[in-house]
Amino acid sequence: MSQRHGSAVGGTKSHRIYLLLKDAILSGRLSAGSKLPGENKLAEQHGVSRVTVRRAIQALDAAGLVRRQAGVGTVVLEQPLDATVMTASVSNLMPNMRKMSQASQVRLLEFGYGPPPAPVGERLGMAPGSRAQRSVRVRMIDEKPFSYLVTHVPESIALHYDEMDLANTPLFELLERSGVKVDHASQSISATLAGHEIAQALEVSVGSPLIALTRVVFDEQGLGVEHLEAFYRPDRYRFQIDLERNGDDSSRYWEPRVGGAPADGVS
Amino acid sequence: MSQRHGSAVGGTKSHRIYLLLKDAILSGRLSAGSKLPGENKLAEQHGVSRVTVRRAIQALDAAGLVRRQAGVGTVVLEQPLDATVMTASVSNLMPNMRKMSQASQVRLLEFGYGPPPAPVGERLGMAPGSRAQRSVRVRMIDEKPFSYLVTHVPESIALHYDEMDLANTPLFELLERSGVKVDHASQSISATLAGHEIAQALEVSVGSPLIALTRVVFDEQGLGVEHLEAFYRPDRYRFQIDLERNGDDSSRYWEPRVGGAPADGVS
Repeated sequence: MSQRHGSAVGGTKSHRIYLLLKDAILSGRLSAGSKLPGENKLAEQHGVSRVTVRRAIQALDAAGLVRRQAGVGTVVLEQPLDATVMTASVSNLMPNMRKMSQASQVRLLEFGYGPPPAPVGERLGMAPGSRAQRSVRVRMIDEKPFSYLVTHVPESIALHYDEMDLANTPLFELLERSGVKVDHASQSISATLAGHEIAQALEVSVGSPLIALTRVVFDEQGLGVEHLEAFYRPDRYRFQIDLERNGDDSSRYWEPRVGGAPADGVS
Repeated sequence: MSQRHGSAVGGTKSHRIYLLLKDAILSGRLSAGSKLPGENKLAEQHGVSRVTVRRAIQALDAAGLVRRQAGVGTVVLEQPLDATVMTASVSNLMPNMRKMSQASQVRLLEFGYGPPPAPVGERLGMAPGSRAQRSVRVRMIDEKPFSYLVTHVPESIALHYDEMDLANTPLFELLERSGVKVDHASQSISATLAGHEIAQALEVSVGSPLIALTRVVFDEQGLGVEHLEAFYRPDRYRFQIDLERNGDDSSRYWEPRVGGAPADGVS
């Protein structure tokens, strides 16, 4: 069942329970060595039959997430750390960009020009009717996809690179090479469900949780130069934000710690 | 259907499609004024019948997310901005803590003492066998829940506050009042699915996406003083990270922008 990628949205009820329990285990909410609630309890919680619960647990067992032990119950197994888990430090977003882009591979899924969606055009401060270069890329390490990146760049800037460039070079580097003076960026991080297309590209089930990031990058004149929507698999990517508490007693505040992150949110 | 909170995990297939499309609309991936794909296309994408798709679209219509227009198709409606959407600035995490705690209300769901889960004890650097104070709280604005907070505090520190204190005062303030010298914190942000209990507390469907934050707070001696697991509704909460690009040409880097955020990640 864990091979079922991007297939029927409803899946079976047991597949939905499998996804929920898998998510709880991979996120550490159900920790290694702890026991799952009993079949009756799970069936009651989720409003399904015991047979349905049993199927979900069989799938968890087959995927190596739990072991059923006679007389004991279902025990959560230690999960080997995925070697491809990337950590993006918020305070150290770009310095290791080259390293990161060398370590990962890009698959370019789409490349084209056209008017951007209205909210994207607005956030970039583009004049109505003007066109943007749109791309969709997947980033992988060892053939394992971890991020799905949708970018829009105003056409006047994007004319400095082509499809081949984007398949081989981080967009950020292409922008700087084009003479863009990047000055600041606005980002927000949220959570979303994998829809059909993204699920297929990231090799997860439809309805899986994804980290969603939106970033708008501006140049020294305050013009928008890049709009990024990124979707990350939470089992292969994580945002790390370390903080220090500074200031004196009358006014204490947190500041992000700078430096020390192994990788970054390259697009 | 949108009233169905924390009910059967499988739900119906049409409810799953409803959740996916709702998520795409609320996150802006399907923008106001754009058209949904046709019923045939959606049915094919999701491996379900047209009847199932139609039910999902009826539910979206009933929830005010789309309008079906004869001869046109199904159009995404403008969503009124939820007045309770909070934005947490990463670089300005605590200064407005009092303001935020005054604006929001807390419901204390659990309060007790016991050995923490192994990973929590380890991250706090607690000696094996020692006990922690565990609490579960929901934070609301205008009766609308937006975060579900699970905290662990070593017992020796937690003896300085009781259940009543925690129901009325942010944990962070209780810690400082207890004489704890908070020095730094390590945070990671991820995404997860709402399981049964959290779904009920946050009034979302089981399987909805949630932002998941883990924070460990340390004192000046490097001892762990608080472990927080927080789950946020993405339609009511967002992490905002603004960055500036600094440095000279030979070494340019991003730094978080400080200041200016309306609210923070108070626990």
